[in-house]
Amino acid sequence: MGTEVYVAGVGMTKFGKSTASLPEMMVEAASRAIGDAKIHTIDYVYIGVMNAEEFTGDSNIAALIADRLGLSGVPSSRVETASSTGSAVFESAFYAVASGYHKNVLIIAGEKMTHLPTARTTKILAEAIDQNERNHGASMPALAAMIAQKYQDEAKLSAEHMQAVLAKVAIKNHYNGSLNPYAQFRKLISEEDYFGSRWVSFPLRTYDCAPITDGAVAVVLTTEKKLIRVSGMGHATDTMAVRHRDSFTSFRSTRLAALQAYHMAKVNPKDISVAEVHDAFTPFEIIGIEDLGFFPPKQGWKAVEEGLTSIKGRLPINPSGGLKARGHPVGASGLAQIVEVVWQLRGELESSRQVRGARIGLAQNIGGLANNNLVTILERTDFYRPIPIYWQPPFNVGNNETRVVSDQPPSSKSGTLETFTTLYTTPEGIPSPLTLGFVRTDDQKMILARARQENPEIGQRVQWEREGDLYYFREDSFTGGAKKTVGKWLSRVFAPSGPKEEKS
Amino acid sequence: MGTEVYVAGVGMTKFGKSTASLPEMMVEAASRAIGDAKIHTIDYVYIGVMNAEEFTGDSNIAALIADRLGLSGVPSSRVETASSTGSAVFESAFYAVASGYHKNVLIIAGEKMTHLPTARTTKILAEAIDQNERNHGASMPALAAMIAQKYQDEAKLSAEHMQAVLAKVAIKNHYNGSLNPYAQFRKLISEEDYFGSRWVSFPLRTYDCAPITDGAVAVVLTTEKKLIRVSGMGHATDTMAVRHRDSFTSFRSTRLAALQAYHMAKVNPKDISVAEVHDAFTPFEIIGIEDLGFFPPKQGWKAVEEGLTSIKGRLPINPSGGLKARGHPVGASGLAQIVEVVWQLRGELESSRQVRGARIGLAQNIGGLANNNLVTILERTDFYRPIPIYWQPPFNVGNNETRVVSDQPPSSKSGTLETFTTLYTTPEGIPSPLTLGFVRTDDQKMILARARQENPEIGQRVQWEREGDLYYFREDSFTGGAKKTVGKWLSRVFAPSGPKEEKS
Repeated sequence: MGTEVYVAGVGMTKFGKSTASLPEMMVEAASRAIGDAKIHTIDYVYIGVMNAEEFTGDSNIAALIADRLGLSGVPSSRVETASSTGSAVFESAFYAVASGYHKNVLIIAGEKMTHLPTARTTKILAEAIDQNERNHGASMPALAAMIAQKYQDEAKLSAEHMQAVLAKVAIKNHYNGSLNPYAQFRKLISEEDYFGSRWVSFPLRTYDCAPITDGAVAVVLTTEKKLIRVSGMGHATDTMAVRHRDSFTSFRSTRLAALQAYHMAKVNPKDISVAEVHDAFTPFEIIGIEDLGFFPPKQGWKAVEEGLTSIKGRLPINPSGGLKARGHPVGASGLAQIVEVVWQLRGELESSRQVRGARIGLAQNIGGLANNNLVTILERTDFYRPIPIYWQPPFNVGNNETRVVSDQPPSSKSGTLETFTTLYTTPEGIPSPLTLGFVRTDDQKMILARARQENPEIGQRVQWEREGDLYYFREDSFTGGAKKTVGKWLSRVFAPSGPKEEKS
Repeated sequence: MGTEVYVAGVGMTKFGKSTASLPEMMVEAASRAIGDAKIHTIDYVYIGVMNAEEFTGDSNIAALIADRLGLSGVPSSRVETASSTGSAVFESAFYAVASGYHKNVLIIAGEKMTHLPTARTTKILAEAIDQNERNHGASMPALAAMIAQKYQDEAKLSAEHMQAVLAKVAIKNHYNGSLNPYAQFRKLISEEDYFGSRWVSFPLRTYDCAPITDGAVAVVLTTEKKLIRVSGMGHATDTMAVRHRDSFTSFRSTRLAALQAYHMAKVNPKDISVAEVHDAFTPFEIIGIEDLGFFPPKQGWKAVEEGLTSIKGRLPINPSGGLKARGHPVGASGLAQIVEVVWQLRGELESSRQVRGARIGLAQNIGGLANNNLVTILERTDFYRPIPIYWQPPFNVGNNETRVVSDQPPSSKSGTLETFTTLYTTPEGIPSPLTLGFVRTDDQKMILARARQENPEIGQRVQWEREGDLYYFREDSFTGGAKKTVGKWLSRVFAPSGPKEEKS
C-alpha cells in the first residue's frame, strides 16, 4: 500500500449559531489546524461541504477558500457525500497523501445552516432521501423514528423501556457536551427535560435529534512521522431507499465500512479504546455500537443502560457530546469526530473528559439515511502493537450480492405493518402531523404508505390505496384492538407533551 | 510515487438536449465505460457534478448513482470544482488508485442543464464568480469578453482582425464537431453564420460561447497495464476576483497546472500531439494554447490563422469540437476532454477526425473564471520514450508569491479603463444591456464599475461614483474622442446584428 499518513494538526470553530460566513468559519478552523501542525507548506486543500449551493448560495467553494487562505495557486477540490462529507473528504485527502503525490494536505469541512427556517433546512436535508420516500413526506427524523420503532420491536423492549434507553443516550451526550468547550450545547439535561421535550417524529423527541448547527473543522495530513497515524479507512454505500434493505435495524453500510477499516488497521472492535459514533438520532448511536461490533446485535441498549459507553465507562462513546450536543453542521460532523479522536489519543484534554490511556480510536460517520457511511481508525505511533498475521474478520456482513430490487407496484392490496412513525415537524409543504409506515405486502414487496391517523401498531394487518406513486393507508386499516391499545398507550407513555399538545 | 494508473475503458452519452434524467445519463455513460473496459469488479465510484443541487434538486448523488448502477455497497464520493469538476474527479480517482488502496475505479461526470431558462442557468453559473464582480452584474461571458478585449489590445490587433480570429476558432470547432457523433452541434458554420449571430457580451457572439448542454461521461481507471497510461496531472487555483490578478490575458492557474503536469510526465509542450483545450469562450482557446506553452504569448491567434490547430494541422486542438461544438455540461466537460484524448491516442476513430500517430495527448480544463484549472497528460504505453534526467521547465510562471490583495476602496476618483464589455444576456434580475469595465485607479487599485452606456475605449480616462460595494461610471466619463470613435466603430464592425437590434 501507499505512503503512511499522519495527522499533523487539527482545529475547529466553536459549534453553534454563528454570525460568521461559511468561508470565515473555514478560514478560522484552518488557521487553528495549521497553527497546531506547525507546518507552513500546504500542497493541496480539500474542502468538504454538503450543500453550500442551497444553504448559502456559495459555489466554486474550493477555489474560494484557497483564495481566502492566501493559498491561491495551491490545488483545491471539494468532496461531498451528504452528511458523511466530513469523513469522505478526509478519505480522499488521505489517498492524495498515500499516493505519494502530496506531502502536506489541508482538509477543511464546514456547513452554515442556522440562518434558514427549520422547515426549509428539513427540506434541503430531505433531498438526500430516496425520491419515493421523500414524496411520501418522509424526512430524516421520520425514517430514523421508524427505525427506532422497529428496533424496540426486535429487541423486545417495552415502549417505556425504549424511551428510557434513548433518554440515557441523550443525557450522556449532553453531559459530555457540557465538558466540551467547542460544543453547541453545554448544559446538562435531566430525565425531566428529556421527557418534557416535544415530539419531532414519534417516538423521537427534540432531545433525540441532533440540532441545526454552524461550524467548521480542519485537519492537516502529512507524510512526516507524527504521534497520530491514520491506520484504517472503510467506506460503503447502501440502497437509497430504506425499503430496499434487508434490515431496518442494522446498517450494512456501517458494517461493510467497519470491516474494511478493521482489516486495513489489522485491529478488532475490542482494540478500540474510544469512539465517536454518528448520533444524528439517539437510536443511531445504539445501532452504531452494534454494527461496529462493540456489542452484540440488539444488545447495544444494555451497554448504554449499564453505563459502559459513558466517558468513564469501558468503551466511551461520543466523549465530545456527539452530533447531539456538540452539534451537527452536516458536512463538518465527520471531520469533527476525527478531530475529537485525535484529541483523545493525544491525551491532552481537560481531565474531566479525557479518556485515559486511549491508543486506538474510531470515528463512524453516516451519509444520507445510512447509505454512504465511513469508518476511520486512528492510532498512536508511540506504542508497540503486534500485527496479527492471520487477522480474522470480527463479524460477517451477510449476503453481499447485489440485491435485485423491484419498485413494481404490489399485486396484493394488504400486508403487515413493519414499522411506523407520526411526524410532527414536517418538511416545507407537507401538512403536520403525518403518519408513515413501511408495509410488507402479501406478495413480499416493501412499500411506504401515509395516513393522517396516529394509531397503528407494528405487525398489524393494513390495507392501502395507490394514487400515482403514492400509497395511502385505508381509513379502516387502523381499527379494532390496535386502535384502542395504541391510543391508550400513546396517552399513557407520552403524557408530558404528547402528540395532542403538538397538534394544537 | 504511487502505483502506475491506466485507462481501462471510456464512454459517454451523446451531448445535447436530453429527456433523460441526470442519474439515467450517468448510468448510460458508466455502462459504456464498463463495457469498454471489460472489467467487472469496481472498487470505488467517483462522481463529478458541478451543481446537481440547483440544476436538478439531486442531493446525496454519489450514493444514488452507486445504487442505480447496482453497486450499492461499493464506496462512492462526489468531487466538485465548478466547471473543472470533470478533471478534478479524475484527479481524486487517480490518487485513490495510485495510493494502492483501489484497483479499479469508475469515474462518472455529468450535468443536466437544458431544462431551465437561460437567465436562471446564467445566474447559477455566475455563482462561481467573485461576489463583488457578480454583484456588479458580471456573468461568465461578460468576464470572458473583457479578457478578449484586453487580449486584442495587448496583441495589437484591430477589432476586425480579432473578430476574424475568434470566428476561425468557432468555425474550426464546429467543423470538428460535425465529424463527432457525440457532439451537440454537428453542422458546419460559415463566416456569415458567425457574423450574423447575436451579441452575448461585446465582443463575444453566440458562436463564441459554449452552449448549455446535458450529458454524462465515464472512465474506468485501473492498476492493470493497458494501452493508455495517465502520465501527468497538474492542478492550480487562482484568485476568485479577476481584478486581483496580475494579468487579464494569461491564466496563471493553467500555467502552474501545466508545469506540474509536464514535470510529472517528464515531457515538454513540443511532445504533445493532440490537445483538448477549455474553449468555453473562443478567446480561451487562444489563451489556452499560449499558457500551455504550445505557442508564444500573444501569438496563439497566428497559429489559429495559419491553420496549425486544425484537425490536420501541426498541433490539432479540440478535434472533438471542443466545449463549443461538442457541448458543455459544466461538470462533465473535463472528463469528456480526457475521453477524447484517449480515443485519439487509441487511433480507432473515423479517419476524418483521427489525429494520426498521436502518442501523448493533453486535456486542459478551466474551473470558474479560470481559478481552479487542471491539466491532464495521457500517453500510449507501447512506444519507447526516453525520459530526460534533467527535465527543464519549458517556461516560468513568474512571481509565485502569495499576492496581497486589498479591497479597500481607492482614494482617487479617477483612473484608466483596462478593459470593458457590454453584456446583453444578463443574469436573472439584471437589466440588459449593461456595460462593465475594469479600471486601474490612479492609486494603483483595480475596480470593476458599471454603466448603461456602450461607448468606452481601453486606455481612456474614467471617473466613477461609489454606492455601497458597487462602482458606477460617471455619465460624463465616456465623452470626447472616445465616444465618437467607438460609436462609429461599433456601427461599422457589427452591422449585421449589432447591439441596437438586441436591445429591442
